[in-house]
Amino acid sequence: MAITGANFTGFTRGASGDKTFKAFSPKTNAYLDEEFKIATEEEFQNALRLAGKAFPAYSQISAAARAEFLDTIADEIMALGDVLLERCSAESGLPLARITGECGRTCGQLKSFAQLLRDGWWVDARIDKAQPDRLPLPKQDIRRMLIPIGPVAVFGASNFPLAFSTAGGDTASALAAGCPVVVKAHSSHPGTNELISSAIIKASEITAMPEGVFSSLYLSHEDVIRLVQHPVIKAVGFTGSRNVGMRLFNAAITRPEPIPVFAEMSAVNPMILLPGAIEFSKEKIAKDLAGSVTLGVGQFCTNPGLVLMLENSRTKEFISEFATQLSATVPATMLNKNICKAYNEGVSALQNASEITLVAKSGTSASEGEAQPSAYSVKATDFMANKQFAEEVFGPSTLFVLCQDEVQLTEVLQSLEGQLTATVHATPSDERTVKSVLAIITQKAGRVIYGGYPTGVEVCHSMQHGGPFPSTTDGRSTSVGSAAIFRFVRPVAFQDFPDHLLPAELQNKNPLNIGRLVDGHWTSAKIG
Amino acid sequence: MAITGANFTGFTRGASGDKTFKAFSPKTNAYLDEEFKIATEEEFQNALRLAGKAFPAYSQISAAARAEFLDTIADEIMALGDVLLERCSAESGLPLARITGECGRTCGQLKSFAQLLRDGWWVDARIDKAQPDRLPLPKQDIRRMLIPIGPVAVFGASNFPLAFSTAGGDTASALAAGCPVVVKAHSSHPGTNELISSAIIKASEITAMPEGVFSSLYLSHEDVIRLVQHPVIKAVGFTGSRNVGMRLFNAAITRPEPIPVFAEMSAVNPMILLPGAIEFSKEKIAKDLAGSVTLGVGQFCTNPGLVLMLENSRTKEFISEFATQLSATVPATMLNKNICKAYNEGVSALQNASEITLVAKSGTSASEGEAQPSAYSVKATDFMANKQFAEEVFGPSTLFVLCQDEVQLTEVLQSLEGQLTATVHATPSDERTVKSVLAIITQKAGRVIYGGYPTGVEVCHSMQHGGPFPSTTDGRSTSVGSAAIFRFVRPVAFQDFPDHLLPAELQNKNPLNIGRLVDGHWTSAKIG
Repeated sequence: MAITGANFTGFTRGASGDKTFKAFSPKTNAYLDEEFKIATEEEFQNALRLAGKAFPAYSQISAAARAEFLDTIADEIMALGDVLLERCSAESGLPLARITGECGRTCGQLKSFAQLLRDGWWVDARIDKAQPDRLPLPKQDIRRMLIPIGPVAVFGASNFPLAFSTAGGDTASALAAGCPVVVKAHSSHPGTNELISSAIIKASEITAMPEGVFSSLYLSHEDVIRLVQHPVIKAVGFTGSRNVGMRLFNAAITRPEPIPVFAEMSAVNPMILLPGAIEFSKEKIAKDLAGSVTLGVGQFCTNPGLVLMLENSRTKEFISEFATQLSATVPATMLNKNICKAYNEGVSALQNASEITLVAKSGTSASEGEAQPSAYSVKATDFMANKQFAEEVFGPSTLFVLCQDEVQLTEVLQSLEGQLTATVHATPSDERTVKSVLAIITQKAGRVIYGGYPTGVEVCHSMQHGGPFPSTTDGRSTSVGSAAIFRFVRPVAFQDFPDHLLPAELQNKNPLNIGRLVDGHWTSAKIG
Repeated sequence: MAITGANFTGFTRGASGDKTFKAFSPKTNAYLDEEFKIATEEEFQNALRLAGKAFPAYSQISAAARAEFLDTIADEIMALGDVLLERCSAESGLPLARITGECGRTCGQLKSFAQLLRDGWWVDARIDKAQPDRLPLPKQDIRRMLIPIGPVAVFGASNFPLAFSTAGGDTASALAAGCPVVVKAHSSHPGTNELISSAIIKASEITAMPEGVFSSLYLSHEDVIRLVQHPVIKAVGFTGSRNVGMRLFNAAITRPEPIPVFAEMSAVNPMILLPGAIEFSKEKIAKDLAGSVTLGVGQFCTNPGLVLMLENSRTKEFISEFATQLSATVPATMLNKNICKAYNEGVSALQNASEITLVAKSGTSASEGEAQPSAYSVKATDFMANKQFAEEVFGPSTLFVLCQDEVQLTEVLQSLEGQLTATVHATPSDERTVKSVLAIITQKAGRVIYGGYPTGVEVCHSMQHGGPFPSTTDGRSTSVGSAAIFRFVRPVAFQDFPDHLLPAELQNKNPLNIGRLVDGHWTSAKIG
């Protein structure tokens, strides 16, 4: 499949714009050949017009038909084969094995939403039957379910060019919910975007979806804001930096009609290593932690950027062991020049701060575009006195915070902003401390981990990938797992409707055979 | 029980402030005796400090204990008896019978949330069991449930001095969720607030709740904004005008840590009367519509403020019949002077617009503080050309919009902002039109009604009281019914936890015997 540099406005491929850019390969440190076209004003308007037009039709298509659509997208992506994997690896600098795994995950996500649609219970159907003879007032028949919110603007992330991009979790959950999607394609992997977009368009044609259910555009910075502020758009999905996330958030909430923004932005994912755990398995934790810090060149939003410990001789031994492990790691290529520059600036700032001590660096120095793994330590009082030390350094780096005692440990935890994850390592001898630590971190994070590592986010019903601000702009939502669908729906109650005018999910005969809350009891029984 | 004019900061009654105000009785058109004290800075800070302190304890109290607390609040409110009912009627101008009914509803709400807590399923417990042998990577044990979001600021509404005020739906749902509440008491019914607050405090003492779980303050305009912007506060519940609601919304989203605002603000609740329905039951609809427009002096957020019809001879007959019915109604006392003033300004503006025709007014003229029911009509083209005609006039008034044909009818519907409710009256002969009408109004409203009237909001699991902006600031939420609890919670995933450190809802033995999604299947079975 040839890469043409096109935007996708509904079923139309358009490459008529005169502003162009090229993809850069971090692998070869050179631009790739193809020219990609920034969307013209006409393409921009057409994509939004088609999304608005597609919404009434797409929102009423049966769940089974939407499931078929998602399954077909997954099939078409798999059919792209090595062309996709190689292009994606070239554009992201990520190894082919990682991209192959991520491609499987992306298709798995699409298929898991398809299964969710077939299961059907997620619509939270509720029925309170009429009581015409109730006194003092008769009770009406009221039935409620979740319906799609409207067209969604999706912003791809650079660190997961497949799983969090054009056909990633945001697109999959929005399409599953019944919402058309307009993707702002990521300029770091435009070829990947084009291949994936063509697969989605092919799937929409095969399954006879309305034109406009999906568009994908390369946009200028100004048009990004215009996209978020366009009246057709009813929600935004984003994964990326705090800076850009907040720009989108501010654009969305200052619209005449404010809309929800689900931006997953930044986190340092604190790990608390309690004394018992260190005593019990110092070497293993040191090794695994070094592995988690450097996994994927540290380019995960769940990268453990902060490690809290009590300051004592065992901790010193642990850090020394960790330093040995980290020194043995090697630098690796980052996703793009900007990310690499930001990483180098972040570690330099730590390095230059008088309160910070270097723990270890990779023993090999980094070539251009590569990140050199590094670790630092700081005393808890200095950490709490310097807000910037708590900011995310995106990449393979972590900061040990050394606390005098358990009281200071809880103070440090209380001082932290909202997090995607928080992890504690403990043994039964840490039981008293672990309870107070868990009470705090459960309030601070979206996912709390006992004895493991935050990297590696399972796609499942129970996953919660989203925590209090600023880890996300809406901690009541997740961007991974089946519950991600709840971001793009809202409840509607239907009062006294004739049965045939109700959505299938709420009809007396329960044709979809889903669990429903009928007069306060969950049942999949028919009514009447 | 004597009314002392106090603020409630935790268990302390404080009346030390030197800024005072009095309650005004719309019934007697005179101020009542007692002086109420605006909270001092110390009281303000104490209430917030205590709410923050109470949260960790209150959030971990068992669901059964929270249920007991809510039930006891209801009992203590009922125990206030006639003192409460008479004070509330005096302060609101609402008839004793209405207040008696509203008191029952308020206690019923508290008890229904207590039942929800005992039922327990609402936490959306999800468990994905570990698969240590899975390839290529082992699967971790992940368990997810909803937990309370943090202290909530609640703003009482004047039009439901019990059901939407100090112990109303927002307070009940926040306390049910596990969130301490700081009420900004409404200055229209401060005596009512004091009686209800004392009942809540008594209930917290009886059931041994932590101090700070509830506070209630009279606040200056500046302190209202400081309340919303205080770092302890994690969400806001509000029912009132669009103007005030948007002030709170803007204050909350521009905080360093933005928080969700659930503001129920304004709606015109369109009714669409299709020709078949008019032909079939002209008299009955005319009578019932006049009843719905004037019910409670039109002071409901679900008041039908817009009636869409096709312009023809039958419609003329219907409007003439409606005019007869409305003329026979009588003016009645509104909740307070400001609301009455706003109503009179609203109807004057309609009356003075050249595009608007008077349909009817109550045959009796209004005394001071009373609203005179009135109805107007406008051509659809004029309606769509003048945005202000679509704005809510809070009170017993409605506007007929006359459409040339069905196409224009759908254009008018498309032009409307988000609504709490939308209602259609139709018969089988209207079937074709009704489907296109329903498709549009389902996208515009939170509750869609077939053949009834929007006034009267049932408190039940299926109720959805909240629609797209500007009817609320978050159409994904409801402020009435058991689903209101979802506003004040967020999901947390627990990964690889030892069973005894998990919340009861997620433990293997399922001690609360709730339905849980285990490996994709809903079950109340134990695990292992």
